[in-house]
Amino acid sequence: MKKIITPSLGYALPVFVLVRPQLAENIGMVARAMMNCAIYDLRLVCPRENHLSDKAISASSGAAEILEKATVYKTLEEAIADMHFVLATTARPRGMTKDVFHPTLGMATMKEKLSQGQKCAVLFGAERTGLENHEIIASDGIIEIPLNPLHSSLNLSQAALLVGYEWLKTTQLGQDNSRNEMGGSHPATKSEVDNFLKHLENELELKGHFRFFDKKERMKRNLRNIFTRNALTSSEIKTLYGVINDLTRKEKHD
Amino acid sequence: MKKIITPSLGYALPVFVLVRPQLAENIGMVARAMMNCAIYDLRLVCPRENHLSDKAISASSGAAEILEKATVYKTLEEAIADMHFVLATTARPRGMTKDVFHPTLGMATMKEKLSQGQKCAVLFGAERTGLENHEIIASDGIIEIPLNPLHSSLNLSQAALLVGYEWLKTTQLGQDNSRNEMGGSHPATKSEVDNFLKHLENELELKGHFRFFDKKERMKRNLRNIFTRNALTSSEIKTLYGVINDLTRKEKHD
Repeated sequence: MKKIITPSLGYALPVFVLVRPQLAENIGMVARAMMNCAIYDLRLVCPRENHLSDKAISASSGAAEILEKATVYKTLEEAIADMHFVLATTARPRGMTKDVFHPTLGMATMKEKLSQGQKCAVLFGAERTGLENHEIIASDGIIEIPLNPLHSSLNLSQAALLVGYEWLKTTQLGQDNSRNEMGGSHPATKSEVDNFLKHLENELELKGHFRFFDKKERMKRNLRNIFTRNALTSSEIKTLYGVINDLTRKEKHD
Repeated sequence: MKKIITPSLGYALPVFVLVRPQLAENIGMVARAMMNCAIYDLRLVCPRENHLSDKAISASSGAAEILEKATVYKTLEEAIADMHFVLATTARPRGMTKDVFHPTLGMATMKEKLSQGQKCAVLFGAERTGLENHEIIASDGIIEIPLNPLHSSLNLSQAALLVGYEWLKTTQLGQDNSRNEMGGSHPATKSEVDNFLKHLENELELKGHFRFFDKKERMKRNLRNIFTRNALTSSEIKTLYGVINDLTRKEKHD
């Protein structure tokens, strides 16, 4: 079993509170989504089914520790008694005076509070009915996940996943990982690319590719642009030398 | 049954391609996640189970139209033949020279391509095995969803939901909906708040609340700060007048 490693972020993590969840399977799937997003503290208010049942454990798919460490409360009041800042997730506006947060802003705000030493929680309501109005009033604000207005019903674990994902994005773990994968090779230097292109041009010259003198420069430019645009690696340059060598070979290799 | 309304964004929407999906239930759940995120075009390459089975329709939970309109292909090559820009989702680096996109950047890039009139698709691999290397090579880049490295396995529909959610965030539907909900009331004007505070101070003065003269101004400042900080509405001001009237009432109302 994997050990829960609490990342040393220098501040506490948010707590997820499921209020009156109905199905053990959903509780397990929420635990899985929390684990995906490096959130480990689960609280349950009046769960209808046992969160340690086989169904729940199996649905958690490797996140059983979160279920085992989860704490159960009789009322929401008790579950959030030690919290300083609580956001309630809702699918629709409730006509009450409250700050409504996009998940991105909600989690950024929560991170700010956490880094000030405040304890923070996100509330998720029951599968069908969501949170009741008095439970939303007990919160400091609302997270409204923007979805297709024609079809905004989300499974409980999907709501937890989206909020958790936005949390993760505020941390090092979820930040921009965009990059160019080099497959273990290095990007080619400009001179490697240039030498290759000169070699290619030479071979083409020999074959009469540039026989229309007035087009020669443009043809070279276009050709160079094809190969400089896509950030070749050193090993790809080697591949291309091999291609040209074989294309220019007079006899078939056997 | 709800009608699929294609939003008039002025450009086409991305296509989701499931490559060798195994379970009908998962296909249905992907359709539901797509509908949540206003993505409607689903293509299936060699699905093991029938995407129009009862299981799939039931799991789609109201997104049956997407399943009914889905098209099935024998090979990935056929499924993406008409596409200009394709991103493959993977859970782990594959050691090949490819652009790797965070979902946010991947969907922003895809939106840019779509708005140039390019057709775009996102590939999702089979439940256990993911996409094969040759399928990733056929793509223009990789989307890598950042997750807890200790537990990064995502259900197929959850991967589709996260990518779809990032798509939706690039459109009007998913943009910042943060606001202060007024519950049908208006924010109070400065003079409404000021008049209320003067009334409160008057009542407190009468009760001797400010009897320590040297603290009077600071007490008033602190009190004002409590009520000005939280953006009261006109109707909340009325509520507070009622509270003060009743607190200052000499006899119990019956």
